[in-house]
Amino acid sequence: MTALRGAGEKRNVVKNNSILAVGSLAFDSIETPAGKAEKVLGGSANYFSVAASFYAPVNVIGVVGQDFPQDHLQWLSTRRIDVSGVQVAAGKTFHWVGAYDNRMNEAKTLSTALNVFEHFDPRLSEAQKNSPYLFLANIDPVLQQSVLDQSKDNRLVACDSMNFWITGKPDELKKTLRRVDILSINEGEAQLLSGSKNIVEAASRIRALGPSVIIVKRGEYGAVLFTPRSTFIAPAFPTPNVVDPTGAGDTFAGAFMGFLAEEGAHRELSRDNPALWDTMLKRAMIAGCTMASFTVEDFSLERLKRLESRELVERGGQLLQMINVG
Amino acid sequence: MTALRGAGEKRNVVKNNSILAVGSLAFDSIETPAGKAEKVLGGSANYFSVAASFYAPVNVIGVVGQDFPQDHLQWLSTRRIDVSGVQVAAGKTFHWVGAYDNRMNEAKTLSTALNVFEHFDPRLSEAQKNSPYLFLANIDPVLQQSVLDQSKDNRLVACDSMNFWITGKPDELKKTLRRVDILSINEGEAQLLSGSKNIVEAASRIRALGPSVIIVKRGEYGAVLFTPRSTFIAPAFPTPNVVDPTGAGDTFAGAFMGFLAEEGAHRELSRDNPALWDTMLKRAMIAGCTMASFTVEDFSLERLKRLESRELVERGGQLLQMINVG
Repeated sequence: MTALRGAGEKRNVVKNNSILAVGSLAFDSIETPAGKAEKVLGGSANYFSVAASFYAPVNVIGVVGQDFPQDHLQWLSTRRIDVSGVQVAAGKTFHWVGAYDNRMNEAKTLSTALNVFEHFDPRLSEAQKNSPYLFLANIDPVLQQSVLDQSKDNRLVACDSMNFWITGKPDELKKTLRRVDILSINEGEAQLLSGSKNIVEAASRIRALGPSVIIVKRGEYGAVLFTPRSTFIAPAFPTPNVVDPTGAGDTFAGAFMGFLAEEGAHRELSRDNPALWDTMLKRAMIAGCTMASFTVEDFSLERLKRLESRELVERGGQLLQMINVG
Repeated sequence: MTALRGAGEKRNVVKNNSILAVGSLAFDSIETPAGKAEKVLGGSANYFSVAASFYAPVNVIGVVGQDFPQDHLQWLSTRRIDVSGVQVAAGKTFHWVGAYDNRMNEAKTLSTALNVFEHFDPRLSEAQKNSPYLFLANIDPVLQQSVLDQSKDNRLVACDSMNFWITGKPDELKKTLRRVDILSINEGEAQLLSGSKNIVEAASRIRALGPSVIIVKRGEYGAVLFTPRSTFIAPAFPTPNVVDPTGAGDTFAGAFMGFLAEEGAHRELSRDNPALWDTMLKRAMIAGCTMASFTVEDFSLERLKRLESRELVERGGQLLQMINVG
């Protein structure tokens, strides 16, 4: 997984490079112009972990019902993903039903059954508290803060959120944002959160809320990185084979954080060597866009299950070529 | 205007590097979220020429009514734009009325008064027939063919089109496409023309119709270049100051063709040195996106009128930085 790494760079490798991911493991029922999938595996932490595990070890915190397939948890644990933090609660697993129109750029939620997720109370083990990389998927900002309260300082924290929390719990979300380094968020949500339709202005206003790094996700158009020093526009890889966009954002984040963890880009790097930090963030964006482009090529985690590292390296190189002016 | 030029490249300079542009000169009445403009100067050939004139001499072919301001034609001729091919006909100038919603990504046409443009019959002078660069703006494909019939061979031909002709005169448009090198077209129009929602497949199907180079314009997301050898994704420059998107596509095309003309990238280059040809096309894409980002910062041609070459060089460099992974 070294195709994106520059030659001769000083690397700051930390011994523990595991990533802690907190979010949902779910069933999704999805309809897209390419077809239908009934009650397939999904959930932000699920997608994130599988993507991140291509780069670094992952710990998942989540909750599933008794109907969740043990096989899948076992499969996750064959891939450097520690699932001991996944609680199995009495009841049913979170179930999301959604559909995409022809553009496939935005999901329409048809129904959400939170089920056991409604009483999710993330509890971190001692090892998990020390994880140097933390990803707070799109969950209640109160829970995101609970995880932050339990974690040790000096971890690199990225988080996601959505319309539901931006409008429903704006004050709690702002408390979370004050404590995170990186926010990854959809374009429409960035506009809603910032009150600005303009991506540049939106990023600048969001930075004032806490996160120094803002990633604005643009679906089929890729994502834009804003650091205090630079802007980087990463296109989506134009795969000719788009089946289901579900999980694209979470697997983007998984590969992004995974890349940083593999490179040992710890939190202090942003202070000690901001130029190298920015370069790592940009390469992590390419890793994220590359991963997301595979995710959308099939329903659920199917494409990622059969994805090989050499495919990531090859497509990552192709994507870099597509922004190389020569 | 040399910021995008690589050092030590072999340059194939042709003596005559003038561009012939055929299209509309018009009045526009526009409403955007940023404000309103009544009966301001617009039209594809108008926008194209002003943008291209930053790079190369331009000849315009078009028709205006007696109500069109002579001042403007005089101003054009102060900028390397030969307006002797602009006919002044009895009657009123083409008048387009349109509006943009909050996203500002697509214009809604409220009314179109073709006026003198209805009887437009482009006639080329001997000098114009020899122009090595030809841009056929979005006009009736029958007129586009008339211009091609009058032109000498071996010119580099780019053209634009739109939904109206794709659905209204598909056979005539296909006749035009068989005779052009480069097609620049909006994403939605590329889908309509190709019958594919997928940009990669759409470009490949359009290539089979004639043009070897396809540029798919994506509004605020930039544009994608497809050559037989490579794909290049150029982002829009994220200006914080979007006032009116009208003319963005035509000024993109103007700077794109202007850049190729200034570099002397003549038609044979695609055959003689395809790698250099692709590099020039990619740099021309950056020039196009840079120009378009200025166009949208004010109504009509206002921003371009006060635009300085050093601003183009500076912003072009910034845009290159935004796709430079470091």
